[in-house]
Amino acid sequence: MINGNIIGFEVSVKSSDKLYAVNPLTLENLPETFVPSTEEEVNLAMEKAFDAWRIYRNISGDDRSAFLLEIAKGMEALGDRLIARVMLETGYPEARVKVEFARTCNQLRMFADEALKEDWKEVSFDDAMPDRKPIPRPSLRKTMFPIGPVVVFGASNFPLAYATAGGDTASALAAGCPVIIKAHDSHLGTNALVAEVIMEAAKKTRMPDGVFSSLNGDGLATGKQLVQHPRTAAVGFTGSLGGGRALFDLGQQRATPIPVFSEMGSVNPIFLLPEKMKEDIEALAGQLAASMTLSGGQFCTQPGILVALDDETTEQLKIALCDKLDKVDDPVLLNQGISQSYRQGIAQLENSDAVKLAFHRKAAKDQAVSPALAVVRAEQFIHNPTLHREIFGPFSLLVLCSSLKEMSRVAEVIEGQLTASVYMREKERVTALPLIDMLIERVGRIIINGVPTGVEVCDSMTHGGPYPATTDSRFTAVGKHAVMRWLRPVTFQNFPKSLWINM
Amino acid sequence: MINGNIIGFEVSVKSSDKLYAVNPLTLENLPETFVPSTEEEVNLAMEKAFDAWRIYRNISGDDRSAFLLEIAKGMEALGDRLIARVMLETGYPEARVKVEFARTCNQLRMFADEALKEDWKEVSFDDAMPDRKPIPRPSLRKTMFPIGPVVVFGASNFPLAYATAGGDTASALAAGCPVIIKAHDSHLGTNALVAEVIMEAAKKTRMPDGVFSSLNGDGLATGKQLVQHPRTAAVGFTGSLGGGRALFDLGQQRATPIPVFSEMGSVNPIFLLPEKMKEDIEALAGQLAASMTLSGGQFCTQPGILVALDDETTEQLKIALCDKLDKVDDPVLLNQGISQSYRQGIAQLENSDAVKLAFHRKAAKDQAVSPALAVVRAEQFIHNPTLHREIFGPFSLLVLCSSLKEMSRVAEVIEGQLTASVYMREKERVTALPLIDMLIERVGRIIINGVPTGVEVCDSMTHGGPYPATTDSRFTAVGKHAVMRWLRPVTFQNFPKSLWINM
Repeated sequence: MINGNIIGFEVSVKSSDKLYAVNPLTLENLPETFVPSTEEEVNLAMEKAFDAWRIYRNISGDDRSAFLLEIAKGMEALGDRLIARVMLETGYPEARVKVEFARTCNQLRMFADEALKEDWKEVSFDDAMPDRKPIPRPSLRKTMFPIGPVVVFGASNFPLAYATAGGDTASALAAGCPVIIKAHDSHLGTNALVAEVIMEAAKKTRMPDGVFSSLNGDGLATGKQLVQHPRTAAVGFTGSLGGGRALFDLGQQRATPIPVFSEMGSVNPIFLLPEKMKEDIEALAGQLAASMTLSGGQFCTQPGILVALDDETTEQLKIALCDKLDKVDDPVLLNQGISQSYRQGIAQLENSDAVKLAFHRKAAKDQAVSPALAVVRAEQFIHNPTLHREIFGPFSLLVLCSSLKEMSRVAEVIEGQLTASVYMREKERVTALPLIDMLIERVGRIIINGVPTGVEVCDSMTHGGPYPATTDSRFTAVGKHAVMRWLRPVTFQNFPKSLWINM
Repeated sequence: MINGNIIGFEVSVKSSDKLYAVNPLTLENLPETFVPSTEEEVNLAMEKAFDAWRIYRNISGDDRSAFLLEIAKGMEALGDRLIARVMLETGYPEARVKVEFARTCNQLRMFADEALKEDWKEVSFDDAMPDRKPIPRPSLRKTMFPIGPVVVFGASNFPLAYATAGGDTASALAAGCPVIIKAHDSHLGTNALVAEVIMEAAKKTRMPDGVFSSLNGDGLATGKQLVQHPRTAAVGFTGSLGGGRALFDLGQQRATPIPVFSEMGSVNPIFLLPEKMKEDIEALAGQLAASMTLSGGQFCTQPGILVALDDETTEQLKIALCDKLDKVDDPVLLNQGISQSYRQGIAQLENSDAVKLAFHRKAAKDQAVSPALAVVRAEQFIHNPTLHREIFGPFSLLVLCSSLKEMSRVAEVIEGQLTASVYMREKERVTALPLIDMLIERVGRIIINGVPTGVEVCDSMTHGGPYPATTDSRFTAVGKHAVMRWLRPVTFQNFPKSLWINM
């Protein structure tokens, strides 16, 4: 395992400091040491990326495709060794890691395929009209051009799929942009393994030196320097609202502002219409409890809010839900910061007059946390915006409404979300339609009779949404259109055929 | 002429202050008075726009198209009265105004046509795969959704085409977004005439009250309140770097940041390769002088920098260019602020050791300014970034290079631009290709053997570019793709057919 920083085709060790990854299950440092990057190394990586951009953007889509496929192959060759390291650094069970591993390789292959097709180039032509009156029209040809070096900050909860060789990296490399990854402090070993795969793939497929770098960091300085660096053209981030907003602000305050696409998660409310609830309360409770607690509830699309009428059916659902939660093991969360935030979030609710905890217990182990369900009346919820914010982990807040109208009012006061779900029967259509129309204002994806967890990687996916779900709702972080974040249009006017090379 | 603020279908007069437009040719106030908007009126316009959005976004593309066509018809019905008012407020000659008038109506018709087709909806489907292993795939359908109320700040130099019913307004209305225009202080009468046309068109085609408002402002407060208003979803601005950056910063510093698309102009460099120059120096000088001085040089795409080898041919071009400029009338610029900035810019060059004025004279009238050509050696230019910035008006800086390599270095140090041009012969292809490759990094449109002025309104146009040309190079302000600034994707997952109304 490489313990230094990967800068293009070189491994660089300048600092004498050491970093460790932590096993969240034991809270002990893992044995391998890693070396943080220095200011000089950040500069070198960015200069190399910029030089590489000038070559990489002009190589064929076929070659970029081959590079991406080689990364997928390299990851598969690592196989169990990589999966074991992810388990050590996250505490995730093997099955969870294997699903993410397969998804990451599939994403790389999808973007390899897209690089081959390059249908995002959106080439359009307007032919010359030399005889047009009063003035002739020149020929115009438009295509998409890679924006430049992209800095990627990976997610704590997806050490493979939203990290070193994850969706941001794969889409940027497919588009023709070099990538500089800031290794996540919690996954230094996972990052080192995958970063080495990418470096070797770049060498093998003869990509330019600097098309990829991986930098470890100590504290916030590395990230700040990366976002402020004049060679940085765009930033992709997945993580907390605080972190994502801070990087966004740094990017916008630059002398030359750059796009910072921060995907910051959300509470993904589920609206439960009464007729649908009555159909099968047991099954519904099972589905909701699973979505709430999957991977310790550590998904961007975890449902943090459930909205229902304050009636007997909802009371039955609450009881069934507590029952299901009681059968779920107490998860150990990804790192101590996340565990602490979760415990604080629940403690604050316990002290709140407006909110009642319906399910919560003393966790089985010190490192673990208990799943939790709390209940609040819509009237209180509507007037208390702190209750609208995410408590990252296996928690949901059940909001009890006195009427369908109040349900709609809850939809109106919530902030921007990645998703919202509506559980309904066909015959509840008249109630559902205005609710859906309201929810579209707030979300990037709206789901009928389904939980928000489970993000299909396909053309029609939108993994994005109004702030604070992301910093720019006009883009998606998942699916082939994720490349659009890293491309800008360029028009070629009056170009003779002899100049149409690589354009 | 309406002298109050148009707030939806009402004319509102709350302030007792008065505003006047100025005739730039006489520097006298025009007789009509206008009333600035109050804080309360801004709030009312934004609330109306938000309510209108909830209706307007769900009406059919056919209806939005009819609304846009009705605006074009209304402008044509005003005809000469409108043209006369534009001439009074800008000092532009009739022919110039008529061209812009025709373009504005054409743009409205183009966006009416686009609203009908709605091909920007980018609808994509991924069918359900209920039997897929290990997990079934739900059906997914993606489309584009209008972002919300758009605040538009018009340009001083295009009182019709980039203003009240200009490209930003037409594209936003086509997309399904209500528009609130902040009237340009220099074109209060033009704005009043066009805004009334839009209000009447909205009434006639039964659009919701609030789909359009027009607010006069006194100083910067109105603009600031509009950008900071919680109901504002996006901003379109065309104007100076200072103004555009200030609005961008306000938009990004909000609790909920919003897209601010500022198009701030540029120096649109023209690179002249030696063999091409020799072909016909007279014709080239004529073309360049015309592009430099068209409409007093007050185009976003005016060529502010000419780059050539320091040789005998360039010396001949310089002489020919001075000759042409000598035959151009001294223009009166759009307003006193612009005239003053222009005079200060030229005066600073006069005091510079590095720059020599090759053409400049005492203007024929006090209000007018002289066209100007200055010369600087590339070595000086490269190390003096203040010379890279725009002097808005009929001015170009000729940069003399000691080699083709130095020419390429000039391309490398300039900032982001709307356009760059390369004059070349086919046989200069080997020199031109790396220069073009460098210029693509800097621009939104690159032109072979043509001047940058003359922005074709068509699908393949990019009127945008890296900062400081615009605040987001991923979008264009001209052509049908201008609507993409006001749209965001939404995915509908597992929707039964019965819910696919208006989606």
